[in-house]
Amino acid sequence: MRSPVSWQADSGQLELLDQRQLPASEQWLACRDSEAVADAIRDMVVRGAPAIGIAAAWGAVLAIRAASGEQDWRQAFEGRLEHLAAARPTAVNLTWAVARMREKAAASESPEAAMIACETLAADIEADDLAANRRIGELGSRLLPAGTRVLTHCNTGALATGGHGTALGIIRTAWEQGGLTGVIATETRPWLQGARLTSWELARDGIPVTVIVDSAAAWMMRTGEVDAVVIGADRITRRGDVANKIGSYALALAAQAHGIPFIVAAPSSTVDSNLEDGNDIEIEDRDPAEIWRATGLEGAPEGVQTRNPAFDVTPAELVAAIVTEQGVASPASGRGMAILEGAA
Amino acid sequence: MRSPVSWQADSGQLELLDQRQLPASEQWLACRDSEAVADAIRDMVVRGAPAIGIAAAWGAVLAIRAASGEQDWRQAFEGRLEHLAAARPTAVNLTWAVARMREKAAASESPEAAMIACETLAADIEADDLAANRRIGELGSRLLPAGTRVLTHCNTGALATGGHGTALGIIRTAWEQGGLTGVIATETRPWLQGARLTSWELARDGIPVTVIVDSAAAWMMRTGEVDAVVIGADRITRRGDVANKIGSYALALAAQAHGIPFIVAAPSSTVDSNLEDGNDIEIEDRDPAEIWRATGLEGAPEGVQTRNPAFDVTPAELVAAIVTEQGVASPASGRGMAILEGAA
Repeated sequence: MRSPVSWQADSGQLELLDQRQLPASEQWLACRDSEAVADAIRDMVVRGAPAIGIAAAWGAVLAIRAASGEQDWRQAFEGRLEHLAAARPTAVNLTWAVARMREKAAASESPEAAMIACETLAADIEADDLAANRRIGELGSRLLPAGTRVLTHCNTGALATGGHGTALGIIRTAWEQGGLTGVIATETRPWLQGARLTSWELARDGIPVTVIVDSAAAWMMRTGEVDAVVIGADRITRRGDVANKIGSYALALAAQAHGIPFIVAAPSSTVDSNLEDGNDIEIEDRDPAEIWRATGLEGAPEGVQTRNPAFDVTPAELVAAIVTEQGVASPASGRGMAILEGAA
Repeated sequence: MRSPVSWQADSGQLELLDQRQLPASEQWLACRDSEAVADAIRDMVVRGAPAIGIAAAWGAVLAIRAASGEQDWRQAFEGRLEHLAAARPTAVNLTWAVARMREKAAASESPEAAMIACETLAADIEADDLAANRRIGELGSRLLPAGTRVLTHCNTGALATGGHGTALGIIRTAWEQGGLTGVIATETRPWLQGARLTSWELARDGIPVTVIVDSAAAWMMRTGEVDAVVIGADRITRRGDVANKIGSYALALAAQAHGIPFIVAAPSSTVDSNLEDGNDIEIEDRDPAEIWRATGLEGAPEGVQTRNPAFDVTPAELVAAIVTEQGVASPASGRGMAILEGAA
């Protein structure tokens, strides 16, 4: 599968697979400047924390190219970086990628040197993410005994990352090793990433996948059809609180009630060492129209309010394992993000 | 508000407000025979356990009218009743209403007498439901202290009943008494009864209502925005297990985790004294297309499975109160459906 975030070195543009159109059609959007990349991130053409980070890195490459012709190229670059970083507030990978690009440019003597340094770094970020995901898959699949039936939420696959996936990376590796019986994918309202993207990716790989509405997950646990919950993360605090797609917290509560392990997969760049506590995480409230579209309306009927939080925070106490490429931590044990096994 | 199940004595037909079209438009469907009523129940033109019972009662009136011209009118009536009863498997009110109509006809000497008896009984069932809901509202509102913010699921209002509503009946009465601050309505996938119907009903009554996706409910509890969960029921066992719209069980688990009371409102006809245990309740699995429609697809993409259970069962242990018109039971106390307070 071609990466959904594809840098075209020849034409100097970033091509993005428009995930809003899947699975009905595969359309690619060509971004020629960093503003277009910022728009694509905000409008969810590209989504998934790692993929957003990679797209932002290439967006910064476009930014330094545009800024290099300006009198004050450093200031022009900074303005474009700030615009990129503001595209979505919750994903730490976005600010992380932008900060790394900023450092590279700051250390460069000339705009030409900055361009080369930024392009090299963007390619590294992309390659590192794929390698991290393969390692996450390897470490995480060890947590799933043979015959496991996994429930997952949202999309954390090749579409959300530099390839292979985080939670779906664990699922893919476990499937390759013959340990997995099947996957239940929640549809993931309001954007339906599970129904549209996860099912599409898994079916393509021949992995048995069953889609349910989000609210049926707890019932599937009660009827004994789920052995483990494996999800991704958008931001993780030092103590192991996990910000992820809205609905993750409800799954964690249900998993706890049924004695089912709740496993989080994420590259270590998702850990925000500035944050001790989940209460400090800013939760993005998105456009109500995202919810109302499913009813055939443009927005809420008159007199009706809407709340559309994009994420929630699952406290460390409910998180059995966080699998990063550096190893596995167990926040529920009270040891925060200390790596307990699998350190490279 | 005109009842969504309206018997037209003059023309001898049953008019049903097509709830699939709300809130975009108000369309009425005229049923001239019991087969049309059965179709309307199966296709969810009319929905909500009490409203289904009332529609089935009037469907039986149409059935006895049609059967009265037959040689063996009792057998013709029975055939039509069985067709009506098979329209949806989970709602006990459907089989309950059909059984009562069957008894009336069996006790009648002639088809003419049976027609009169059935028509009288259908009108009684409708009037009794409205009276029961007002009583439920009165009893249930006593459980909500001033300033309560209620979360509800699916639609249990005038649209789902003979009027006033069950869970929405409690909400309406509490609002009239000035005790309620506002209501959070889950959108209720896959049919979106919360977004389409509950928000429409509450906004019409001027009650502040906020719609969220189902999977955000647990997060709203965690952020301290919910004081009580109040929902309806499709079937209740002797020990107080509650079959209700898929997602109710997930809400009960989340409510327990946050120390929030989980309150069920239903007419006593919802209690199925033949059932001791929730494991005996048959759960209707509905057409996958109901889920996939939201993605713009006709059904599941190739290679993708779907599960679409319409209901789940919340065990008695999680149910703080069940409010019927006969009084309030507290299954979580271990005393099943014994009425502990408010007996008439």
